[in-house]
Amino acid sequence: MGATYLHSPPAAVNLICDESALLHSTSCCLHFCRHLRCNTSNLKPCQTLVFNLPSRGFNRRVSALPDVDDFFWEKDPTPILDTIDAPIHLKNLSSKELKQLAGEVRSEIAFIMARKCQPCNTGHSVIELTIAIHYVFNAPMDKILWDAGQHAYAHKILTGRRSLFHTIKQRKGLSGFTSRFESEYDPFGAGHGCNSLSAGLGMAVARDLGGRKNRIVTVMSNWTTMAGQVYEAMGHAGFLDSNMVVILNDSRHTLLPKADGQPKMSVNAFSSALSKVQSSKGFRKFREAAKGLSKWFGKGMHEFAAKVDEYARGMIGPHGATLFEELGLYYIGPIDGNNIDDLICVLKEVATLDSTGPVLVHVITENEKDSGGDFDTEIAPNDEGTPDSSQGIQIFLENGLSRTYNDCFVEALIAEAENDKRIVVVHGGMGIHRSLRLFQSRFPDRFFDLGIAEQHAVTFSAGLACGGLKPFCIIPSTFLQRAYDQIVEDVDMQKIPVRFAITNAGLVGSEGPINSGPFDITFMSCLPNMIVMSPSDEDELIDMVATAAMVEDRPICFRYPRGDIVGAGGTLAYGNPLEIGKGEILAEGKEIAFLGYGEVVQRCLIARSLLSNFGIQATVANARFCKPLDIDLIRMLCQQHDFLITVEEGTVGGFGSHVSQFISLDGLLDGRVKWRPIVLPDRYIEHASLTEQLDMAGLTAHHIAATALTLLGRHRDALLLMK
Amino acid sequence: MGATYLHSPPAAVNLICDESALLHSTSCCLHFCRHLRCNTSNLKPCQTLVFNLPSRGFNRRVSALPDVDDFFWEKDPTPILDTIDAPIHLKNLSSKELKQLAGEVRSEIAFIMARKCQPCNTGHSVIELTIAIHYVFNAPMDKILWDAGQHAYAHKILTGRRSLFHTIKQRKGLSGFTSRFESEYDPFGAGHGCNSLSAGLGMAVARDLGGRKNRIVTVMSNWTTMAGQVYEAMGHAGFLDSNMVVILNDSRHTLLPKADGQPKMSVNAFSSALSKVQSSKGFRKFREAAKGLSKWFGKGMHEFAAKVDEYARGMIGPHGATLFEELGLYYIGPIDGNNIDDLICVLKEVATLDSTGPVLVHVITENEKDSGGDFDTEIAPNDEGTPDSSQGIQIFLENGLSRTYNDCFVEALIAEAENDKRIVVVHGGMGIHRSLRLFQSRFPDRFFDLGIAEQHAVTFSAGLACGGLKPFCIIPSTFLQRAYDQIVEDVDMQKIPVRFAITNAGLVGSEGPINSGPFDITFMSCLPNMIVMSPSDEDELIDMVATAAMVEDRPICFRYPRGDIVGAGGTLAYGNPLEIGKGEILAEGKEIAFLGYGEVVQRCLIARSLLSNFGIQATVANARFCKPLDIDLIRMLCQQHDFLITVEEGTVGGFGSHVSQFISLDGLLDGRVKWRPIVLPDRYIEHASLTEQLDMAGLTAHHIAATALTLLGRHRDALLLMK
Repeated sequence: MGATYLHSPPAAVNLICDESALLHSTSCCLHFCRHLRCNTSNLKPCQTLVFNLPSRGFNRRVSALPDVDDFFWEKDPTPILDTIDAPIHLKNLSSKELKQLAGEVRSEIAFIMARKCQPCNTGHSVIELTIAIHYVFNAPMDKILWDAGQHAYAHKILTGRRSLFHTIKQRKGLSGFTSRFESEYDPFGAGHGCNSLSAGLGMAVARDLGGRKNRIVTVMSNWTTMAGQVYEAMGHAGFLDSNMVVILNDSRHTLLPKADGQPKMSVNAFSSALSKVQSSKGFRKFREAAKGLSKWFGKGMHEFAAKVDEYARGMIGPHGATLFEELGLYYIGPIDGNNIDDLICVLKEVATLDSTGPVLVHVITENEKDSGGDFDTEIAPNDEGTPDSSQGIQIFLENGLSRTYNDCFVEALIAEAENDKRIVVVHGGMGIHRSLRLFQSRFPDRFFDLGIAEQHAVTFSAGLACGGLKPFCIIPSTFLQRAYDQIVEDVDMQKIPVRFAITNAGLVGSEGPINSGPFDITFMSCLPNMIVMSPSDEDELIDMVATAAMVEDRPICFRYPRGDIVGAGGTLAYGNPLEIGKGEILAEGKEIAFLGYGEVVQRCLIARSLLSNFGIQATVANARFCKPLDIDLIRMLCQQHDFLITVEEGTVGGFGSHVSQFISLDGLLDGRVKWRPIVLPDRYIEHASLTEQLDMAGLTAHHIAATALTLLGRHRDALLLMK
Repeated sequence: MGATYLHSPPAAVNLICDESALLHSTSCCLHFCRHLRCNTSNLKPCQTLVFNLPSRGFNRRVSALPDVDDFFWEKDPTPILDTIDAPIHLKNLSSKELKQLAGEVRSEIAFIMARKCQPCNTGHSVIELTIAIHYVFNAPMDKILWDAGQHAYAHKILTGRRSLFHTIKQRKGLSGFTSRFESEYDPFGAGHGCNSLSAGLGMAVARDLGGRKNRIVTVMSNWTTMAGQVYEAMGHAGFLDSNMVVILNDSRHTLLPKADGQPKMSVNAFSSALSKVQSSKGFRKFREAAKGLSKWFGKGMHEFAAKVDEYARGMIGPHGATLFEELGLYYIGPIDGNNIDDLICVLKEVATLDSTGPVLVHVITENEKDSGGDFDTEIAPNDEGTPDSSQGIQIFLENGLSRTYNDCFVEALIAEAENDKRIVVVHGGMGIHRSLRLFQSRFPDRFFDLGIAEQHAVTFSAGLACGGLKPFCIIPSTFLQRAYDQIVEDVDMQKIPVRFAITNAGLVGSEGPINSGPFDITFMSCLPNMIVMSPSDEDELIDMVATAAMVEDRPICFRYPRGDIVGAGGTLAYGNPLEIGKGEILAEGKEIAFLGYGEVVQRCLIARSLLSNFGIQATVANARFCKPLDIDLIRMLCQQHDFLITVEEGTVGGFGSHVSQFISLDGLLDGRVKWRPIVLPDRYIEHASLTEQLDMAGLTAHHIAATALTLLGRHRDALLLMK
């Protein structure tokens, strides 16, 4: 394997060696190096780094080799980190050593992220917090849950995954999120960023019912406090009064939108000291005793005492503190989250508190503009085998190399909004694409960014429409799942004209299944009043913006992929409204017809070229609409071809199912035409580049052409094509 | 029309006369009377009632005649109510008259509800509040949004729908919810009970952007404060600072779960007076001025003043008050919600406040055990042409006439839980079926009712499963939509064995589309790791409980309908786990095969009998599993029959689509078999009895048999059958 083993890996990381994958990964790395466009001036050639690879218990998913770059670029020495394979190795370190360890972890992450052209400070704000948690608590017996992927980077490095950390987000590499499949130190997957409290509470209840004594620690990000689920979970935690530690990692110190413009609270020695006092068993017991005593004096006294208590804490706590108390969590804070000594002191007190119910520890960490907090980056920028950070994109843009569907969409929307004052934008979901900031700066009063409050975003859009405006509700496909009920009840059932722009539809590359959007065609097309469409290229996307702006009697949605556009883009200044439910023939042929929905139409056209090499003339049609279907077009395709292949980047139950339903009821499927659906496979597609993912999903032009060849009985040609 | 017109209807109610519908409705009423089983001893024969019907502007949806009973049963005189056709008629009433009006509305609702055997106090708690709102605000120019259907009853009566109120929840009668299609006094549909603040905020923003000056009033129920969306909306309202009035109708005064066991706050003259003080312009302006002044003294002073202000209000406010303030709403209350004078005084002050941002008025109303608040009734009990309240059901149960799928499910679950201590129940969604209370009383520590916090309920279940327990997550189909993302990200993607019991699947009768569950097969079957099944009868349901308890390596779900079971029920003490992905042949035939999924299998069997009268032998198969499909069974059906008809009570994209996908890829659809899907039609099915709804949906046994006859070319026989 060509690498020196310094440490045996912890048993917790289950790794499986896959030779072929390793080779593939190495060639990918080399390819990656050649295409590296980020600033590497600070990285010097060096051969001193000895890289460690785990020797046993390999996992089928995690099997990428160390990059060759590791052997050439200089890195700060990490003497303490080199001794840490598992959190237990932290326990005997001194305060000074822990601080040094924090610096080493920071340098390690910065080094690797710089090589990947990702923001160097990703996850930096929580390094001290991560070390303090692992110092005080005993993972994996104690369960530590993170709700933001990038905040778990230090956690991954300290829990036996250091040697594989450079493979993060690569195919067969580490996930960008916590993952139950990856390590027993990850008791729950991060998901969409507000599930840690809910899942942790479930584990706490299971622990109590099972008579166990381990601790549950969940680390929430402050931006998740805009998600309703967190309030549902806090209310329930307060009611159940189960022991658990909720750490609010507050990197902006704006718990609530209103506090945005308010001055930032100072986190000083005074508040740090007070937090320590509050969390001490003595103080807690005194308070409990005082409360118990006051009960003897009757209701009034009790309530008064409780209020005074609340007030006392409220006076020193920040805006938002009593909110948690009222939801039933005992509030401690704020604490300087970059001071390891303070953190360990408070967490130690908290860890020894028994039968005290849920405790919320409010930790203020330095805002380092990491992607979770500032919402300036999109969750799933373009990573077509290239750097996948917003920083990377910016470089590409400056070089004029990349232009995405999102760019075209926003330009078209701005053009429409210039002409129609009723157009407003509601944005939901994690992250926000940089182009949308253009709309925001152009029309600040007509732009509403609601983050992961998607439920509210959708109903709020419905309210805007009822008030006579034309809302475009822009939500990535994966986050649209979070507002499905509101789409059904508050929009579709009431036939309210909300325009849904579904971004990042289908596969999304390095973000993996967590942020992919395979289901939206299926769950939107079954709604009775919804118009469901998808453009085959950027010009059609611009037309669909105009179409959506025009429709005023019902809801309408259109999905488009992340990633680059097909052509030069922006050829249209304004879109032309499409006729509802009308597709088009792009290329005429015979024998076989491809009916594509969305950008896959481009791959159908390539497949047609491939097939022409085999002497086959295929028809390619662009459906445009999944609902209502272009039944004239479909009838014609069925009547003039032996085979109809529907193609979409979505799951079963979507476009193909609607087509088959129609041609069945129309009698066209009774022996006349043979129908084959090409859809996403019935499994989650792991993180990789978009190209790799399409290949894994069997949705490349070659796959489409090979399907046609197989249908025509030319199996040998199909095999040739796929070689 | 046979009725005397006392009042012309307000223009706001748009009614259309549909003669045939009227006749149908009258016969329905007579039928209904014959089957009336509720206690009518307090109702005396009487002929004095003169019933008023609207004379113009009939709506196509609202066209039921007054019941014949109206002419026979005595009712208290309602002299003031008789003069109210629209809210504007309230404006000149004196305080004394308004109070009398409240009594008359109460008596009117009680009279009609008694006749319908529904709880007499439904909506009673908010009558004074409704009158006060319509007295102070000017609907329909001012928008008044209710988030609970039963709380809008008085609102419906006062906004021109009195004469049709007795048709509530009947076919072609008034909806049980607010509805944009029904009246311009309903600016938004109630939906799932926590959308009023989001929608109202959208309207407020639209108003401000449009330069209009109307007021937005949303009435929230206190039980909606467990739903995350409300917090998302409050945070956003606080941020935007748009003028709107949020009335928290608090009929239990337990805003937060933790306060459940605490003594109920008294609502006395003192707090009422204080509320008045706080809402007065003078006080508000004084506070604003004081805040402005304190800004001159620097940050520290400003924050101190704000805290003192908060404290001052906190001392007199109830538990939960500062929560709203911290979310950015100005809190006023609590106010006695049954005191019209107080309400009008406070609302008048609030209505004249300009540019003060969102105000939350906390109103305490008498708890009358109405269905929204106490969760003791299920939202959609059995209404097969019979009374549809929990009270009604109780009567039926005592008479031994009705036994539902829910009853069998819970008994089976209790039996499993007796044997397996790891089984726990998490319940989500509005209302709770009475049988579940049996489980709760048997295993109080293993039962978690989370109401409309479904997002949390699903992730909490995942946490329980990670902790080694076996959670059954019981959520009605319609409310499962609210947690779709959590099902995808926190359960299915992580392959965590949560067992979903999807209740009230398909059509639900009088609750109409709002609480119907047509989409779950579609949106659950596209998930890669989910096992998706549905029982054809109660014995199979019991087997599926055992199956779900057994599966430990992946998530599993089963849907079953509301309503009565097929047979005597409960023949099985314990269920036997089914083989995953195996269906069964129930009756062998030739020519045509019905492959049913779920309880529709019973209707397929009846259709088979009907067809045998025409000399046709149909095969009936019970699929049991939508995922994984029983491919052997399907292959066999395709090979031995000319026609395969898939039947399900769900939308396109579900079971039929999965079958067609398989038989297409398997080549079985290439000329061998003709496939026809029977699914729910592509529209929302309006409220009616279940039988009526099935008829409207084309899903009766007659429809199924007629489809087969048509396929076989026997169109005349099909018409004969449908006569």
